[in-house]
Amino acid sequence: MKTIIRNISMLNIKEKKIEENVNIGIDGDRIVFVGDILEGFKAEKVIEGENRVAMPGICNSHTHIPMSLLRNYGDDLPLWDWLNSKIWPAEKYLTPEDVYWGAMLSLGEMLNSGITSFIDMYFHIDSIGQALCDAKARGFVSRGLIGSDDGSREQLAEAESFIKNWHNTQNGRIKSMVAPHAIYTCSGDYISEAMELASKYGQRIHIHVSESKKEVDESLRDYGKSPVEYLSDLGLLDMPTVAAHCVYLSDRDMEILKEKNVNVVNNPSSNLKLGNGFARVDEMLKLGINVAIGTDGSASNNNLNMFEEMHLAALVNKGVNKDPLSVPALEVLKMGTVNGAIAMGMEDEIGSIEVGKKADLAIISLDSAHLCPQNNLLSALVYSAQSSDVETVIVDGNILLENREHKTIDMEKAKYMVKSISKRILNA
Amino acid sequence: MKTIIRNISMLNIKEKKIEENVNIGIDGDRIVFVGDILEGFKAEKVIEGENRVAMPGICNSHTHIPMSLLRNYGDDLPLWDWLNSKIWPAEKYLTPEDVYWGAMLSLGEMLNSGITSFIDMYFHIDSIGQALCDAKARGFVSRGLIGSDDGSREQLAEAESFIKNWHNTQNGRIKSMVAPHAIYTCSGDYISEAMELASKYGQRIHIHVSESKKEVDESLRDYGKSPVEYLSDLGLLDMPTVAAHCVYLSDRDMEILKEKNVNVVNNPSSNLKLGNGFARVDEMLKLGINVAIGTDGSASNNNLNMFEEMHLAALVNKGVNKDPLSVPALEVLKMGTVNGAIAMGMEDEIGSIEVGKKADLAIISLDSAHLCPQNNLLSALVYSAQSSDVETVIVDGNILLENREHKTIDMEKAKYMVKSISKRILNA
Repeated sequence: MKTIIRNISMLNIKEKKIEENVNIGIDGDRIVFVGDILEGFKAEKVIEGENRVAMPGICNSHTHIPMSLLRNYGDDLPLWDWLNSKIWPAEKYLTPEDVYWGAMLSLGEMLNSGITSFIDMYFHIDSIGQALCDAKARGFVSRGLIGSDDGSREQLAEAESFIKNWHNTQNGRIKSMVAPHAIYTCSGDYISEAMELASKYGQRIHIHVSESKKEVDESLRDYGKSPVEYLSDLGLLDMPTVAAHCVYLSDRDMEILKEKNVNVVNNPSSNLKLGNGFARVDEMLKLGINVAIGTDGSASNNNLNMFEEMHLAALVNKGVNKDPLSVPALEVLKMGTVNGAIAMGMEDEIGSIEVGKKADLAIISLDSAHLCPQNNLLSALVYSAQSSDVETVIVDGNILLENREHKTIDMEKAKYMVKSISKRILNA
Repeated sequence: MKTIIRNISMLNIKEKKIEENVNIGIDGDRIVFVGDILEGFKAEKVIEGENRVAMPGICNSHTHIPMSLLRNYGDDLPLWDWLNSKIWPAEKYLTPEDVYWGAMLSLGEMLNSGITSFIDMYFHIDSIGQALCDAKARGFVSRGLIGSDDGSREQLAEAESFIKNWHNTQNGRIKSMVAPHAIYTCSGDYISEAMELASKYGQRIHIHVSESKKEVDESLRDYGKSPVEYLSDLGLLDMPTVAAHCVYLSDRDMEILKEKNVNVVNNPSSNLKLGNGFARVDEMLKLGINVAIGTDGSASNNNLNMFEEMHLAALVNKGVNKDPLSVPALEVLKMGTVNGAIAMGMEDEIGSIEVGKKADLAIISLDSAHLCPQNNLLSALVYSAQSSDVETVIVDGNILLENREHKTIDMEKAKYMVKSISKRILNA
């Protein structure tokens, strides 16, 4: 299908500016022109861009999408109590079908806030693959590998089976990563097995790193090194790696992350809500580390709204550093788009609106009172905009959300199913 | 007019719980029943409450509403540069008509996020009174008194004239406070004059206190005391006082605020965005200080969204205190409602949904994906909800927003006017 978006303002993230009155042409899954209309281009679908801005689709670089099933469950608890007494017990009751519906609702919720790609970690991942397939959405799925668990063999097998059956299917929209959960849930040997699996299939690594002080203290106690040093010594960081959280980092840790080109994912809501604190985002960015942003799961957030995360990343770091110039609007927009694409290893395909790239983009209405006047549209997108301003979302050239109406997901059914599943498992 | 809201979930803020299947009856400006329908009550207007929650109207306890005209203008600057090089020069060009339209747009924006009352500080305040009158909204207006200014006499006169002409008009919806701007903009003598004016008319005081480190350092240098100690010694804190910001407080300052029953307003977005940092909210609440929440003006925020502020207050304090139990959801809901009503001296009239109180309330739709499942509705309102979930807003018994449609404000005209005014003054 050929689509044209006419006369729209556009966030050119690489040139660090807003361009006015741009035309964007899409043919199949690709962007074929940006600027003047290509001669002879006959669009079957025309989207009028007046009073709107097109931005690259947002990348949610660390999440656990089926956790919508546990939204607002067990709030106001520390990370360890929350995992041990609430989340992990409830998750034992989840069936593959439950995970499918939790994932489906979250795919819809993410499209509502302009998210066109994400990196997930969960279990029953075939169900997530199926949801992605049915919704025509784009995402990286990874099986959270818990090495201390009885089922640790089966988990590796599940991960390998997903790679074989799903990785790079659906025109490349569904991809996989290999995800040893964290150093406190996996032995060194088990992490090495995960690394072997990743090597065998050329997969990227997705892992939680230095999320809490407890994790770092125990690593220092048990191994005499920080989690980052420990993973570096295991050789894991020599593989393309997405390291979620990275809240408690030493200066040496940051040097290692930079040296090894590790992609860090900042999860501001989750880190704040669970009382973990503030990642050293400004310093990491200044060191040249690639920092992306994620929502984490909606049980510790409690939603999947990347406008909220970008807003938080911009504000919180200014407060922490007592510096209003810290993590400015443009930097946050990069973290939410192109930096996420880099973390996914897809910077040649997504993360910016450019000719030849995949057509993954979000159209934001500028009609709301809170966006009037705009004065500075870069600022407006970060400091004033809400996810409800997202109007239309295109993934891989397909319009998945149009005027806030879902085209591939039956949201009423997804909500109905998630409510009944949630009721069942939380009363189990 | 008689209105009934049927079968709705209701936030009972005083009982600290959600009540299910409540009926709320409104006769004129008052709530006449909550729970079972009063026998013989014949409603002219019926609002169906299924899959919705009614909450007390939100109190935005410190703002500068006409500053929507300067939204996203001069971002990423420190407080002092921002005021001196951007905001104050631009404000010199504002006419009373400009202020009217800036205020009107903001009244609409505030209703969009469920705000039913606010405490403002600005100039050309007759225009704000007129906007309140035309929109049928509720608010406290105060003339920001700058003692170092050529016009300091006229400012006091403007404040007095507003009290005489507007205070307690429109069924009590329009009220006034007296607002010496801050100790760094007013001499002690000038503050005393403001206090005399307030005494003469039984007015409350509205003032900025200890917003930045610079303010506190200069106070210590010039007076040998903190801003709180200085204002206490002037006698100002013996009057009913709303102290905005209070970011940099000593332990002694907090004791004074508690002793003097000062109402503190936390402005998380603004304090973060301008690099001022984190107020000691958790400690103030534990000391029993009344802490409300405000958006500040939309030039330093950059919107008037109290769901965002409540969300920030809940998250940020958990991060600062490394404690997921810090400032829990219920506490934040109190800060946004009943604590604001206390700051306004109106706790007998607004801030909770109770028989005999004014009918100021917001109806929140629970239909969105990000509110599914709810599991815990108190949590959901703070951690998951968005301002876009606000559906209907009632102030003083009048429906001002119904299904997100404004009943008293021509928002298209307000947006048009604000855009042209903003263009004019920022190009001046």
